[in-house]
Amino acid sequence: MGNERVWVAALLVIGDEILSGRTQDRNVAQVASWLNIQGIRLAEVRIVPDEEARIAEAVNTLRTAYDYLFTTGGIGPTHDDITVDSIAAAFGVPVIVHPKARRILEDYYATRGGLNEARLRMARVPQGADLIQNEESGAPGVKMENVYILAGVPSIAARMLEALDGKLEGGRPMISATLGAYAAESEVADLLRETEAAHEGVTIGSYPFFRNGRHGANFVMRSEDGDRVRETAEDLQSRLTAAGFDPVLGGL
Amino acid sequence: MGNERVWVAALLVIGDEILSGRTQDRNVAQVASWLNIQGIRLAEVRIVPDEEARIAEAVNTLRTAYDYLFTTGGIGPTHDDITVDSIAAAFGVPVIVHPKARRILEDYYATRGGLNEARLRMARVPQGADLIQNEESGAPGVKMENVYILAGVPSIAARMLEALDGKLEGGRPMISATLGAYAAESEVADLLRETEAAHEGVTIGSYPFFRNGRHGANFVMRSEDGDRVRETAEDLQSRLTAAGFDPVLGGL
Repeated sequence: MGNERVWVAALLVIGDEILSGRTQDRNVAQVASWLNIQGIRLAEVRIVPDEEARIAEAVNTLRTAYDYLFTTGGIGPTHDDITVDSIAAAFGVPVIVHPKARRILEDYYATRGGLNEARLRMARVPQGADLIQNEESGAPGVKMENVYILAGVPSIAARMLEALDGKLEGGRPMISATLGAYAAESEVADLLRETEAAHEGVTIGSYPFFRNGRHGANFVMRSEDGDRVRETAEDLQSRLTAAGFDPVLGGL
Repeated sequence: MGNERVWVAALLVIGDEILSGRTQDRNVAQVASWLNIQGIRLAEVRIVPDEEARIAEAVNTLRTAYDYLFTTGGIGPTHDDITVDSIAAAFGVPVIVHPKARRILEDYYATRGGLNEARLRMARVPQGADLIQNEESGAPGVKMENVYILAGVPSIAARMLEALDGKLEGGRPMISATLGAYAAESEVADLLRETEAAHEGVTIGSYPFFRNGRHGANFVMRSEDGDRVRETAEDLQSRLTAAGFDPVLGGL
């Protein structure tokens, strides 16, 4: 298991609306969870403004540093949607109208007022790119080498991820188990460190909360080896119980 | 106005729990909104794993590229909290126990079981750092030159931001206005582009949604000049109304 290749991805969120605080991002958690099922680790996220130079620079850094790069945002029909142009610039290729994307949009808009110039913008791709199907809104996502260009609207991004299910090469999914307890982190820090040290290859993360006037934390054990995660969870459960806490499997 | 200095900040989220998809980040929107009130733009976000080398590298890149760097996460009492050590490494200084932080924790835990070794971890700072007050949980945040080290728990990060209110040098806050309409973006793309072109210094972002079976979008106008934002909003409202839509001020 130790010698298995680990597949890693980055996510680039293109979004003035996220950086202004106006919109709460939902795509980081969505892409992260989806990647995990594919056996790929999300190893870095960057959020940059809707500026071509900033997008192109981040794309070139991340697509070379990771196996896969996903982007969300900026592929709609309006003037502020510059993701395709920026990624074409990053690759040093022109932007073309993809014939199949044009046909998809012609069909989709046949009963919705027809294809106008703004709608045709959504058929534009960097030269050499393939399409990612999208059942929800007609306009497809775009795959350019190892870069997967998704919509910013979370429900549309979700349809594009579904279309990619099982199509990317990955390793073993990360397995996790969670125990929650109404324990202040500072009361169980030693216990956690000792438990982690006793189980090689399993990491334990501690995520505190404060709820209804009580301090508590969730302890998340992670490994690619499900048996080891289960053993660690059982061990931690015993130790927490012995220390007078009442841990809840699945978390609080 | 055009010659006024623009202040820019980056945010580094330190968080395996965000990258695994387990936890929905809340700090990007919170820090972004707070910065905007201080007259500082959030210009980049990175999310990296809980690994010292990754944290230190990102800290050194971002603290030199921006006026301010904020970090969230990894300053608790448990073994997986390595932010202070990583930032000390980035600055090339040792970690010390801050005398005032130690006193704060001694007072806080006097009626809560006393200061143990795990709790004392929260008094550790990079040598040369100052404290950021935190009314909620005792443990302070840390300021190291232009780097502001905040808690990962959003409610505690919020208290630390409150303590910093009005204390950072900034410029004019960004003013924005929002109009929402049940219009498909592709029907109003030209209208939006023309409106933006007619109002120098104002950007218009278009953020589509699909709700109750209807396509719509919110159009957000932004500038440091509130008068220009208001003029642009009135102009866009007229144009949308003339085109047969029924725009709603404040957004949908």
